[in-house]
Amino acid sequence: MSAPATTATIDLNCDVGEGFGAWRIADDEALLDVVTGANVACGFHAGDPSTMRHVCEAAVKRGVTIGAHVGYRDLAGFGRRFLDVDPVELIDEILYQLGALDALAGASGGEIAYVKPHGALYNAIATHEKQAGAVAEAVWQYDPTLPVLGQPGSRWLARAAEAGLTTIAEAFADRGYSPDGRLLPRREPGAVLTDADEVARRCVRLVRDGEVVAVDGTVIPLQAGSLCVHSDTPGAVELATAARTALVSAGVEVRSFA
Amino acid sequence: MSAPATTATIDLNCDVGEGFGAWRIADDEALLDVVTGANVACGFHAGDPSTMRHVCEAAVKRGVTIGAHVGYRDLAGFGRRFLDVDPVELIDEILYQLGALDALAGASGGEIAYVKPHGALYNAIATHEKQAGAVAEAVWQYDPTLPVLGQPGSRWLARAAEAGLTTIAEAFADRGYSPDGRLLPRREPGAVLTDADEVARRCVRLVRDGEVVAVDGTVIPLQAGSLCVHSDTPGAVELATAARTALVSAGVEVRSFA
Amino acid sequence: MSAPATTATIDLNCDVGEGFGAWRIADDEALLDVVTGANVACGFHAGDPSTMRHVCEAAVKRGVTIGAHVGYRDLAGFGRRFLDVDPVELIDEILYQLGALDALAGASGGEIAYVKPHGALYNAIATHEKQAGAVAEAVWQYDPTLPVLGQPGSRWLARAAEAGLTTIAEAFADRGYSPDGRLLPRREPGAVLTDADEVARRCVRLVRDGEVVAVDGTVIPLQAGSLCVHSDTPGAVELATAARTALVSAGVEVRSFA
Amino acid sequence: MSAPATTATIDLNCDVGEGFGAWRIADDEALLDVVTGANVACGFHAGDPSTMRHVCEAAVKRGVTIGAHVGYRDLAGFGRRFLDVDPVELIDEILYQLGALDALAGASGGEIAYVKPHGALYNAIATHEKQAGAVAEAVWQYDPTLPVLGQPGSRWLARAAEAGLTTIAEAFADRGYSPDGRLLPRREPGAVLTDADEVARRCVRLVRDGEVVAVDGTVIPLQAGSLCVHSDTPGAVELATAARTALVSAGVEVRSFA
Repeated sequence: MSAPATTATIDLNCDVGEGFGAWRIADDEALLDVVTGANVACGFHAGDPSTMRHVCEAAVKRGVTIGAHVGYRDLAGFGRRFLDVDPVELIDEILYQLGALDALAGASGGEIAYVKPHGALYNAIATHEKQAGAVAEAVWQYDPTLPVLGQPGSRWLARAAEAGLTTIAEAFADRGYSPDGRLLPRREPGAVLTDADEVARRCVRLVRDGEVVAVDGTVIPLQAGSLCVHSDTPGAVELATAARTALVSAGVEVRSFA
Repeated sequence: MSAPATTATIDLNCDVGEGFGAWRIADDEALLDVVTGANVACGFHAGDPSTMRHVCEAAVKRGVTIGAHVGYRDLAGFGRRFLDVDPVELIDEILYQLGALDALAGASGGEIAYVKPHGALYNAIATHEKQAGAVAEAVWQYDPTLPVLGQPGSRWLARAAEAGLTTIAEAFADRGYSPDGRLLPRREPGAVLTDADEVARRCVRLVRDGEVVAVDGTVIPLQAGSLCVHSDTPGAVELATAARTALVSAGVEVRSFA
Repeated sequence: MSAPATTATIDLNCDVGEGFGAWRIADDEALLDVVTGANVACGFHAGDPSTMRHVCEAAVKRGVTIGAHVGYRDLAGFGRRFLDVDPVELIDEILYQLGALDALAGASGGEIAYVKPHGALYNAIATHEKQAGAVAEAVWQYDPTLPVLGQPGSRWLARAAEAGLTTIAEAFADRGYSPDGRLLPRREPGAVLTDADEVARRCVRLVRDGEVVAVDGTVIPLQAGSLCVHSDTPGAVELATAARTALVSAGVEVRSFA
Repeated sequence: MSAPATTATIDLNCDVGEGFGAWRIADDEALLDVVTGANVACGFHAGDPSTMRHVCEAAVKRGVTIGAHVGYRDLAGFGRRFLDVDPVELIDEILYQLGALDALAGASGGEIAYVKPHGALYNAIATHEKQAGAVAEAVWQYDPTLPVLGQPGSRWLARAAEAGLTTIAEAFADRGYSPDGRLLPRREPGAVLTDADEVARRCVRLVRDGEVVAVDGTVIPLQAGSLCVHSDTPGAVELATAARTALVSAGVEVRSFA
């Protein structure tokens, strides 16, 4: 199931809880003041139990929906390196992360309301049929009513839909697109947008018109039920705030899909 | 709440799923043919997600109750080294393990039915007031109806009882006791019993008469709702089988307390 | 630099020290009684510091040469899953492992005498140009006089040779070959040989005649300076012993290339 | 061997390279502009291979001495939690870290010039006889000419001296002392000094007069060959710079003991 082409409501999701032990990445609390969905790291690419709990408590306090940001077991690589996990084992690794986060969300008065893969897993299952199927299977085994977030056109969303899961397509507020609708690799010029006004304008156009302008000027139709905003750069909070403010000014209701 | 002094029924628990990745410790399937409670490692001292799932599936298939064998985060030390974790963080670490195991138990058609700490954590919370309270608090936050297993007289069972949890005292089928009711340290003579007949006789006496003979001949009253049998030695399956056979012959019903 | 086609001497290498903490894989001491080169796990795919030391001490005692068995940082996967590490970081990860092992070898009265990559890294750098170059670069930075072991025809040996390292081609005593000289994937019939006589005959033919018979009967020329024998199966010691005995009977001198 | 009571030269050491993967703690490069000794994390409490290499290269470039900042194997706890490691295994764990760092220091054109334990290990071996002896034994086995840094009066320095190692007593530039010469626990008032002028004055007095004023006003004699400055707070660079500037103004030569 995809979100309608244009909609008066939109979800804003961002990655939080990506510290580990003594280490922190982002200003989670400030981000949670802005977004409607918190992708919470589950301990495999980042996120120790107490960090997970703190961010769940902060999300619950603000009425922000908790999502499971599941990843490869790779703390040293922050889950950003492809790992050729056996799909059968991947099912179990995703279940493990879901259960772990749910316990901490539950103790915080919340619960997992959606699932979004992280980093290299997210990228891999755009095309890696078996890993895509494994993640979908894991969510289905855990709770078939959990919606999942992903990129439109990915094998991940296709396999999730086939498994009977509700799928939410997301667009990226601050990333450049190639004419074929893919994200530009981070190292290419125009891949990461840092101008708050531009990001804000893109978000409004994405939600209201269901389209985004690619790096070469091509207008791409893009129907998204959620917008993903950056969390790991100094200007992340400002970008997210600008996006939200512009959306509200444009008459869009910013709220979780869950 | 303690089990009655003498009882016609007894639970047999043992540690399983203590491998990690390519590594294995025990013959889990053979042990699960004998015991009534499976203490399943949750990934912190041992136990990767697929190992956890396999052992949960094997337990469910045999009608063996699944317990969460929670431990310190210390794979290199197999959870056998005291770790001075902040009690507040320990609560979250236990919750994480409980949720993770429950997800894999659930996907296997089962669920966590009790909690038993592992190794150095088990030993520490016999006397470490704050860690004992933290583990009790974690179980309570997760599910206040979950029974917990521990050593009679430990601060762990005391704190668990204060928290309103059901407590089950356990005795060790194959470990020597000192006159004050404690286990002999593993390195002392008589600390580990390997004679199947002796183990079997002790088990029957423990269950039927509520007593055990200490290393110096002292008869110690010991009221146990569960007997713990070894899992990590070559003769473990034989010892467990001898214990079970003797108990059944003595008219004791061997079944889970859960 | 490759070994000559036929030779009166051969090295026998095998993987040892592949336990971690409480876990063990193989009977290292028995294997070290037979082989001439010990591929010692360095802590990334297996091998904790004390295991590394014990195996180094056992190797030194027997006059067995110590090799660094470097791998991906993946304990959960035993280094058997491809990990898309940045080549620049891979250089540093290999250096880290080499230094760590050398410290323990040194404290045991020995030193690293060669390098052999493990598992998925070994497989990847047969063809993965950048990772192959990174491992070669790391060895060169560490000690350009260290010989390296690998499969003939691999990019790894090619890049190592280009970097000025001494390369030793190895053949597998107990693995089936396809007609093109590659190892059969483990799941295919004939991929793993378990008959000691057959393994012994192959070893003699490999060393004396410089050839091996592929699964389809094709005779493949294969010039090897070392033979790798299994370590992680119950019959590993018997296979290795049979190979060594047959080689010695055939007049081959079994000794390290180092 | 201790440093003389008053000295015209002093070493400034600080902890660097305490990130891991995507995570960073301090502005290492700015700190390395100020100090003369870099305590480099070795991968057990913090520090991945590439982080270690970058900080070693930055140290070498600036002529800053490289020290091995060895710790407990506890990434989740940043090495700040006591871990009851078997002393025999601790020897091997320290050797592992020393060798690993030396490989990366060597590839950076440097080498380990001293050893300083980190966090909970540092604290433990002030009094824990067996772990203190293990760390001293490990350094001795690795290289008996390596000086070691520690707190005056600690069992660590005593055992290191008994082992024949050169010992350097250090004082803390920005930590409060109790009248008995110990550091105040971090949570007590006055435990951490953040006023740059005060820190600078203390440093000068420590070096020139060999004394420090305790929290209650007691003047404590303290003979230090090195001053440790903070690295993990926002003002760390300013404090370190203020200390160095004041020392130089007071005619003290700031240079490494190594």
